[in-house]
Amino acid sequence: MGTLNSNNNAQILPKFNPLDPEQFRNQAHQMTYPVLSQVEPGYLRTQLPQNAPNRPESFESIMKDVQNHIVPGMTHWLSPNFFAFFPATVSSAAFLGEMLCNCFNSVGFNWLAELEMIVMDWLANMLKLPKTFMFSGTGGGVLQITTSEAILCTLIAARDRKIENLGLDYIRKFVIYGSDQTHSMYTKACKVAGIFPCNIRAVPTSIESDFALSPAEFDIWFHVDAAYGGSAGKCPEFRQYLYGIERANSLSLSPHKWLLSYLDCCCMWVREPNVLVKALSTNPEYLRNKRSEYDSVFKSLRLWFVMRSYGVANLQSHIRSDVLFDAVVPRCFSLVCFRFSPNKEHELGYTEFLNKKLLDSVNSTGRIYMTHNIGATFTEDRHVISTWKLIKETTNALLRESVF
Amino acid sequence: MGTLNSNNNAQILPKFNPLDPEQFRNQAHQMTYPVLSQVEPGYLRTQLPQNAPNRPESFESIMKDVQNHIVPGMTHWLSPNFFAFFPATVSSAAFLGEMLCNCFNSVGFNWLAELEMIVMDWLANMLKLPKTFMFSGTGGGVLQITTSEAILCTLIAARDRKIENLGLDYIRKFVIYGSDQTHSMYTKACKVAGIFPCNIRAVPTSIESDFALSPAEFDIWFHVDAAYGGSAGKCPEFRQYLYGIERANSLSLSPHKWLLSYLDCCCMWVREPNVLVKALSTNPEYLRNKRSEYDSVFKSLRLWFVMRSYGVANLQSHIRSDVLFDAVVPRCFSLVCFRFSPNKEHELGYTEFLNKKLLDSVNSTGRIYMTHNIGATFTEDRHVISTWKLIKETTNALLRESVF
Repeated sequence: MGTLNSNNNAQILPKFNPLDPEQFRNQAHQMTYPVLSQVEPGYLRTQLPQNAPNRPESFESIMKDVQNHIVPGMTHWLSPNFFAFFPATVSSAAFLGEMLCNCFNSVGFNWLAELEMIVMDWLANMLKLPKTFMFSGTGGGVLQITTSEAILCTLIAARDRKIENLGLDYIRKFVIYGSDQTHSMYTKACKVAGIFPCNIRAVPTSIESDFALSPAEFDIWFHVDAAYGGSAGKCPEFRQYLYGIERANSLSLSPHKWLLSYLDCCCMWVREPNVLVKALSTNPEYLRNKRSEYDSVFKSLRLWFVMRSYGVANLQSHIRSDVLFDAVVPRCFSLVCFRFSPNKEHELGYTEFLNKKLLDSVNSTGRIYMTHNIGATFTEDRHVISTWKLIKETTNALLRESVF
Repeated sequence: MGTLNSNNNAQILPKFNPLDPEQFRNQAHQMTYPVLSQVEPGYLRTQLPQNAPNRPESFESIMKDVQNHIVPGMTHWLSPNFFAFFPATVSSAAFLGEMLCNCFNSVGFNWLAELEMIVMDWLANMLKLPKTFMFSGTGGGVLQITTSEAILCTLIAARDRKIENLGLDYIRKFVIYGSDQTHSMYTKACKVAGIFPCNIRAVPTSIESDFALSPAEFDIWFHVDAAYGGSAGKCPEFRQYLYGIERANSLSLSPHKWLLSYLDCCCMWVREPNVLVKALSTNPEYLRNKRSEYDSVFKSLRLWFVMRSYGVANLQSHIRSDVLFDAVVPRCFSLVCFRFSPNKEHELGYTEFLNKKLLDSVNSTGRIYMTHNIGATFTEDRHVISTWKLIKETTNALLRESVF
């Protein structure tokens, strides 16, 4: 029970506020870790026991290990200084959607889950995809884990459509063509699907044609992987990058790359859902009861949460606000491929050596992490400016050391 | 500022407690939904707009739609009345692990992520797997999304090992053998991998040998799918079900089925990690920089959180406490295959008709949902008892209607 005395004491002490946002902001900003893991391989094995504990451990002791051993060994994809691979965009709406999905922990057996159908059509409408890709038209879409899965699934569908006409033995004659700019997953998916490696072709593309492919009018399955850039298509000024999509058989796009969603989330649309279903569905006895077909919520809930919480207008402005910087080859969205080339007369091998040295030096500072720059969700002007400053400082230092 | 008057009022009103656990319990128990979705296909499309909103919507309005439109259309895998497919076991430690993973939103590019190696060895030790499956021995393990993925990956590894010796053209001669009790995914994985359907064989097993397979001493890749039952192996009294595992080339086990983890989580161990890596790894230029190999945290964090929070002793007692009930064929763990057969002289077709009718009737009540009974995490005696009561009542009602 309180007394007058203790009340008097309270007036002398500074006001107690356990949720002071300013104090939190200051302290949180001091909890910084290098964006790129600074540990050596094998470090974690020396920190953690050889076996799982027999008795429960306290939450506090687990979190202490997370802080001391796990976090320092991580590369932080959400850091604004993360310029590597691709941006892992997130949002608070996506986090709430994740939590809700976890609460349900539901298995969506049927790919025709209703919310998924609705969400896929919503996104297709945002991107102004043709009706041939929509459930409200003659096509449809399905959520996958990653682009890798989407490419594998479409490849199997395309393969089996041909097998049906030509017979199984033709598998060794099937040829797959991809742009020479295609993700390495393309080759892997082909191998998984039993395509002979000698039949996997890379079609040369060039900067003059914006690395575009113009598939001739052959009877081929034409898949477009728009994992990162596809999200820009919802802005009218970037819709041009999806021109001709009506000629594709399928399209994949990963909202975890530029649509404020958590890993893993990949949208895939196909013009002929029946071909995909035929190639990949099973019909075992234990799924054959009246209700198994109707599970209506799958992970689509997460994407639905993002779209409703922000609305099309905000999702468009997110694309427009992403930090862009200049590049040697024409910049496309925020994807910049630049290189250091102090002397244009250097051989290509030497230029590559210079850039590798520069990249290793910059990354070894732990302050930023870059491979092929795209920029993370929380990246602001100041991060790009300080990154550029660091790159120039490092270049100058290397020049002084006569490394170049 | 408070006054004497307002203090007096407070004494008249009932004490305000916004976090009254008793009130919460009472109200939460009134928020009940049928375990099995009671809606008809297509219902959701009529409830939700055709397009994503242009402006943001409030959290309250989204949650209202979740309550009114999403939840009633779902089949609730976490309901204690869920007796279908397989149990989706969860725990609060798993939920915290999920949240932490989401906070990091990190991509673990390399399958040799260190925490994953540690966690896989921990679980291997718990199951008393031979050293040939452990990183601390000569093997190793990797987390996959589902058993389907694990089966596909091992199949590709096995296939490519043979291709290396025999040449690509042999793909059409490769024969895959599975027990006739194997999951339907087995056939699907074979087709994805380009195995000719005529070469997919189901080996007959029988109740007398506990449906066991005894692969002869041929040079074959032998994979064991222990998705549900494998978790029991950590109890000495159930370790017998893993006898002979040292002769297998690979093993998969899904902690989301009986190890208190969230979907999706599948552990896969292999005796020859190099064969798996060779078959499935790519080595593209953009992964070839000094740091890309060292990402040390992937989704293994979730499993690590569960093991540490509960300890081996609790995880064993969870297996032991799972509800079991009698069955026609010998019960194995809590997997019960029972059927209604009022007259032993009935033909098999007629018995199937009876059971289908009974199953449809029981499920149409919405009170329980069963296909092949295993039992969910929250299932208690009373749920099994009331389920059994419902089955008997329904049977009697059908008998009275002379359906049987």
